[in-house]
Amino acid sequence: MENVSSTMALCEKAKGAVREISSLDDKKINEALLAMAGALIKNTDEILKENARDIEDAKDSISAVMIDRLRLTSDRIAAMAKGITEITQLPSPLGAFLDRVERPNGLIIEKISVPLGVIAIIYESRPNVTSDAAALALKSGNVCILRGGKEAYHSSAAIVKALKEGLRSAGVSEDAVNLVSDTTRASATELMRASGYVDLLIPRGGAGLIRSCVENATVPCLETGTGICHVYVDKDADLDMAVRIIKNAKTSRPSVCNAAEVCLVHRDIAKEFLPRLKAALVDERQDAGLIPTELKLDEEAALIIPGTAASAEDFDTEFLDYKLAVGIVGSTEEAILHISHHSTHHSEAIITNSNTAAEKFIKGVDSAAVYVNASTRFTDGGEFGLGCEMGISTQKMHARGPVGIRELTTYKYVIHGCGQIR
Amino acid sequence: MENVSSTMALCEKAKGAVREISSLDDKKINEALLAMAGALIKNTDEILKENARDIEDAKDSISAVMIDRLRLTSDRIAAMAKGITEITQLPSPLGAFLDRVERPNGLIIEKISVPLGVIAIIYESRPNVTSDAAALALKSGNVCILRGGKEAYHSSAAIVKALKEGLRSAGVSEDAVNLVSDTTRASATELMRASGYVDLLIPRGGAGLIRSCVENATVPCLETGTGICHVYVDKDADLDMAVRIIKNAKTSRPSVCNAAEVCLVHRDIAKEFLPRLKAALVDERQDAGLIPTELKLDEEAALIIPGTAASAEDFDTEFLDYKLAVGIVGSTEEAILHISHHSTHHSEAIITNSNTAAEKFIKGVDSAAVYVNASTRFTDGGEFGLGCEMGISTQKMHARGPVGIRELTTYKYVIHGCGQIR
Repeated sequence: MENVSSTMALCEKAKGAVREISSLDDKKINEALLAMAGALIKNTDEILKENARDIEDAKDSISAVMIDRLRLTSDRIAAMAKGITEITQLPSPLGAFLDRVERPNGLIIEKISVPLGVIAIIYESRPNVTSDAAALALKSGNVCILRGGKEAYHSSAAIVKALKEGLRSAGVSEDAVNLVSDTTRASATELMRASGYVDLLIPRGGAGLIRSCVENATVPCLETGTGICHVYVDKDADLDMAVRIIKNAKTSRPSVCNAAEVCLVHRDIAKEFLPRLKAALVDERQDAGLIPTELKLDEEAALIIPGTAASAEDFDTEFLDYKLAVGIVGSTEEAILHISHHSTHHSEAIITNSNTAAEKFIKGVDSAAVYVNASTRFTDGGEFGLGCEMGISTQKMHARGPVGIRELTTYKYVIHGCGQIR
Repeated sequence: MENVSSTMALCEKAKGAVREISSLDDKKINEALLAMAGALIKNTDEILKENARDIEDAKDSISAVMIDRLRLTSDRIAAMAKGITEITQLPSPLGAFLDRVERPNGLIIEKISVPLGVIAIIYESRPNVTSDAAALALKSGNVCILRGGKEAYHSSAAIVKALKEGLRSAGVSEDAVNLVSDTTRASATELMRASGYVDLLIPRGGAGLIRSCVENATVPCLETGTGICHVYVDKDADLDMAVRIIKNAKTSRPSVCNAAEVCLVHRDIAKEFLPRLKAALVDERQDAGLIPTELKLDEEAALIIPGTAASAEDFDTEFLDYKLAVGIVGSTEEAILHISHHSTHHSEAIITNSNTAAEKFIKGVDSAAVYVNASTRFTDGGEFGLGCEMGISTQKMHARGPVGIRELTTYKYVIHGCGQIR
């Protein structure tokens, strides 16, 4: 007998389920999803028990923040089930006629959306990703292979056990959802190199994980998540709006990828604007007993307001914290140039009342989402109306921005002829 | 001074041209393309001289077929120029509004097609790829980095020199088209790993080159070209049509990726069909003084007609030659199963008059192009009405099937707000 690793055996199993899962109609998929949601609720006690085991094992080795991410409650499990139920409400992304041409020789060429096949997701220790990812994959007709972090393994295993129970009760192969039991680095590497088995690999997590996938994957890989997002305050900005937007973009949830990390301010309004920015991000927060934002100022900004002197790296850092790099520029053009050198091509905003400046910024900034007079925090599948998402793509191939169910499909050409030869 | 390789210096130059090239309008792009076509014609003598040098250098080390691929004539150069001119006739793939939603909070979210940025193409020794690829990249607003085979280097350099002359005369940066001067393996590896510079890497060539790119690339890479294409002759097929289609799919141009390599025949009609297939592919060709097709038969087919005994590998081989593997199956279902195990997901055809069988085949076969009653040879950008193409994608991410100018674009979201925060 061959010595096949458990991960490759799982890949084999996943591939074997592709034909069944990709041919399910949307009604059947929704039935299965609802059954999965129901099974999560039904197995709440079991899931909580396994989650407690993870927390017990991890409590001495990971931070309190990580423990909080890891911890499940019956409310959180109910929210996971609700998330799945919401996905059933989305229109199916499958079977759409994306194009249709009749050629002069009589061939009818149709371009039709179809599932990708097998999607592998490598993620860290948020147990809810397990159910989200499984549901998004199934809604788009795909089989998934889930490889979560070792800290959440027992929780994920209990969740997947429940999801499989739901699948079975709906008469759908339980091989639609697969969890890798090996949580060592070896299994992640195997998935990255499982050519012929994995049609799309999506890493969800920190920059290190994503870098490792991009470096090592031989299967198609979707780069997600890193966001060094910029807000540029133009000379023609409504300064009240600018303060409100930056406050939101920086402080509403600093740990997420669509939070702003850099603020660029036009020289002409810097003297008026920066003190107001400091009042909102530093002073008011301090007065309210909140963590004040650390402003990391370039030399010119430092002449106007107090703050920390910015190092060169501060303009290339995803702080994910109450920290904001602040720089002065002389024009929209200069802002675009700075962004083109320092951005991760996630989300950038201009605050301006000038159409000329807005147009220039839209055209010149090469990012997944370019905002005029709104917060970068809206880059999100739900906020874009795509439903739940698998992550935010920061690459340009395949999908850019929020990766929803439509982005988990591909297409095929179906050609109807009557004996045509070339 | 830093020690930067000539390839990385070229990447830097290419990246530096992205903003200019991506902001050109279609009129300007077409002007530049026409000037490039004109410059090719004008420099015919110079290009032929450099081509003669390549042929002189290569004639002892490569085959006659390869020499023929390498050789240019003034007609071939005129055809290259005509190819560029035809690309100007295509509608621009840029600036299309792919989607537009107004959200309940008033945000207007537009999804707009935009250039990818820098496209790198690694190819072998067909000099015409140099001008095709450059023109397709420019039409879609992209800067290209071309890395051709060493045998064609002087020809490619002369072609690129002419293209740059055309660009300059149209007032467009000549850095839109870049040729790597290092033709060792090192430069290919550098391009594969030029993260942050190359937005899309397209290998064009043999299986070895493509494998190497897929294995080694850290930049997004589009797998192209390998075609183990199947034609399945159903029990309800029009057998005359089946013979005509397989003859075309196998023998009209065996060296291309959309040529058929495998014929699967339904058991019920095998005794009637196989002798006719042999007559068309073997006997008639022999009588006409042409190379007869070698039929590689499975055990059951070998009981019906004479031929070579097929080995197991014959059903997994891209012959690119007058060779066809022939197998018997008991049902459409079995044909689909065989294809799912052996296909490279390029193009497959069913010949049948049964709608049920056709529907089953369309649904069950997971390939870029699935044909009913037509030759697989139509999988081609021109034949699909997409204009010229950069290759045929056999992966599912980003683009599948012919890669035309639309597939050389990505999109960005542009969000118009009036101060929205989340």
